[in-house]
Amino acid sequence: MVCEILSVGTELLMGQVANTDAQYISQRLSALGISVYRHTVVGDNVGRLDEALATALSRSDFVITTGGLGPTEDDLTKETVAAHFGLKLIQDEASLIHIRDFAERAGKVMTDNNLKQALIPEGSIIMPNLNGTAPGCIIEKDDKTVAVLPGPPSELKVMFENSLYPYLQKKSGQTLISRYLHIFAGESIVETQLMDLFHLGTPTLALYCSTAETTARLSVMCGMDEDPSPVLDPVENEIRRRMGDALYGEGLTENLPHVVLSLLKERHRKVSFAESCTGGMLASALVDQPGASDVFDESYITYSNEAKQRLLGVNPATLARYGAVSRACAQEMAQGARARSNADYALSVTGIAGPDGGTPEKPVGLVYIGFADKNGAFANEFLFKGDRTDVRTASIKNALNLLRLALLNDNDR
Amino acid sequence: MVCEILSVGTELLMGQVANTDAQYISQRLSALGISVYRHTVVGDNVGRLDEALATALSRSDFVITTGGLGPTEDDLTKETVAAHFGLKLIQDEASLIHIRDFAERAGKVMTDNNLKQALIPEGSIIMPNLNGTAPGCIIEKDDKTVAVLPGPPSELKVMFENSLYPYLQKKSGQTLISRYLHIFAGESIVETQLMDLFHLGTPTLALYCSTAETTARLSVMCGMDEDPSPVLDPVENEIRRRMGDALYGEGLTENLPHVVLSLLKERHRKVSFAESCTGGMLASALVDQPGASDVFDESYITYSNEAKQRLLGVNPATLARYGAVSRACAQEMAQGARARSNADYALSVTGIAGPDGGTPEKPVGLVYIGFADKNGAFANEFLFKGDRTDVRTASIKNALNLLRLALLNDNDR
Repeated sequence: MVCEILSVGTELLMGQVANTDAQYISQRLSALGISVYRHTVVGDNVGRLDEALATALSRSDFVITTGGLGPTEDDLTKETVAAHFGLKLIQDEASLIHIRDFAERAGKVMTDNNLKQALIPEGSIIMPNLNGTAPGCIIEKDDKTVAVLPGPPSELKVMFENSLYPYLQKKSGQTLISRYLHIFAGESIVETQLMDLFHLGTPTLALYCSTAETTARLSVMCGMDEDPSPVLDPVENEIRRRMGDALYGEGLTENLPHVVLSLLKERHRKVSFAESCTGGMLASALVDQPGASDVFDESYITYSNEAKQRLLGVNPATLARYGAVSRACAQEMAQGARARSNADYALSVTGIAGPDGGTPEKPVGLVYIGFADKNGAFANEFLFKGDRTDVRTASIKNALNLLRLALLNDNDR
Repeated sequence: MVCEILSVGTELLMGQVANTDAQYISQRLSALGISVYRHTVVGDNVGRLDEALATALSRSDFVITTGGLGPTEDDLTKETVAAHFGLKLIQDEASLIHIRDFAERAGKVMTDNNLKQALIPEGSIIMPNLNGTAPGCIIEKDDKTVAVLPGPPSELKVMFENSLYPYLQKKSGQTLISRYLHIFAGESIVETQLMDLFHLGTPTLALYCSTAETTARLSVMCGMDEDPSPVLDPVENEIRRRMGDALYGEGLTENLPHVVLSLLKERHRKVSFAESCTGGMLASALVDQPGASDVFDESYITYSNEAKQRLLGVNPATLARYGAVSRACAQEMAQGARARSNADYALSVTGIAGPDGGTPEKPVGLVYIGFADKNGAFANEFLFKGDRTDVRTASIKNALNLLRLALLNDNDR
């Protein structure tokens, strides 16, 4: 099945928002093995919308529209699609009741404008909108199908998952099974080590990189009841063997803070942080995860030298001799945070995030990450590239990875 | 001038990335008063790219392509554009030297694949790539213009600003002047209060909302040497009058943490934080800003009750009677942070960010924000909607706004 996505909205052409709707739908269609050959964006203009719809339907079996279902006069997607197929718009009672209830729950009164949102092309399959007022619909005619979705991402995603995905899954009869492996290493390193695996054909291997880490995706197309394991398992095992401890997790939504949180929970350990240039970002990455209270009691943000001394017990002589951005200071910060918090582990970060404050000896991007556990403390030196946000992001990821590697060897229950 | 954006890349059709290139270019073209009528995305497929290019040029004077300039065999944008216009590709010596130097600086050797990136359609204007290897180019032929840009956003933005924007500015002879006013209030409140100003025609008024705040944009189209002030000033002044202290800043890139940092600097004040459910996010928002060390020495993350007592001096009786998520606890947290840090101001956050931990009496989204200064302390109650990230984001913005309002009245130098 060949599909196109047609997004409607002047806000997209003005660049006020990125077309994340098309991205989301494409990701999900790809998981169903449905090929997307084109994304098109037009403004709230009936002429251009109608022309784009006709062109898309001349090339593709299936067109998904997003946007243009609002209550205002500009919102004309349903009207244009119905006219294209020569269908009347008829009022849907269930949608009308939903719109009235939804407005009431939001403490509003349904306006005449909202009435228009309950109109549906005759004979179409209605997709309820659990997060908003405008329903979507699926129109099947002359071997062509058009699915009409709302523009706001929170409405679109829920409607897609509840109504359109099951519809498409039934229709396509096959699905792309993907596995995601998360690796704490740069893309070029991972690429070099997995080079020969890119040429297997089945399964396919693709890499996605973000600051300090790389995700490998293994994919294979399967019938609905087919088991992908015989194809995926051997290649996954080979990647795991080559990557060793650098491979930290699996699954589309896995991330480093969540893995660290899980390891801390499993091993009944607690962590504390002492942050300078990251200013709370490291602790916040952990607290972002639900359930952090099991492994985390407290943390210190010590930006000034005086605070490093008073709150963490960093030796004034260390600061005088080596400065706050130094291996010795990072080590003492971690030791101090561990001793004061009574946590099993402590991590510290001190560095020069920029844009100012760099010198030839201590350039922007120089960061020391300290680590303390019951056996002692040490600190590692890093020189990160990029702007203030890049340096801070690389710092917290490397700190979390240091803790992860320590936890993997922490079998002393 | 009517423009279309044609993006090339299978990764876009797979949903691996959102089309932020099209968004960026659209924003910038809008600032020049150039209308964008269409975005199109096609994969790395010469047939579909060629067809999309021909169709775009049949409708529009100006087509900007993004992507497909890499060194691999899949990257065929320049080849396809050159073929469309019947132009030969010729090697550009300056680009070749740049590619070799760029590879060497990155510690790599230029490969044969890179040689292809130095090929340019004959007679085109070359746009150097300061952040990568592939140059872009502008081809003018038969009243049509095609600008070819690279796909990676870091390369595209710099090339656009240095080469394409000045070219287009000269060509269009006019520019859209916009002013951005940032308001700490929800969209519906702002919309209601500014209702009549939406119908002025000139200047145009548009609202953009994000968590807890709204940005109003005033725009007018001007000739290159025209002064927009007589049109914009009266409406801006009226918005300022109606919004009062809720209006916190101006300019496209202004944000609340930066405004708070500036006010703290101006008034020579320091702040400290005591965070529970935000876990360092509030301090990190301030430290995100360069120059935070002038106004910020230290901060406390107290997640457990025991840490709230030991680090901030919260009374055990308060915790026993009211719980950690309470007005009394928030107030004592702020008082404790102020006293211990010796800062002029302290803010505290304690709440239930979810998804777990809510009860009928204390539901998910219940947050207390405490405030302390030399005159005393208080705490405000909030009930925020949304997921864990929404609740935490709304918490830090409301905390920063509380501090901002206090600083506006802090004239006691």
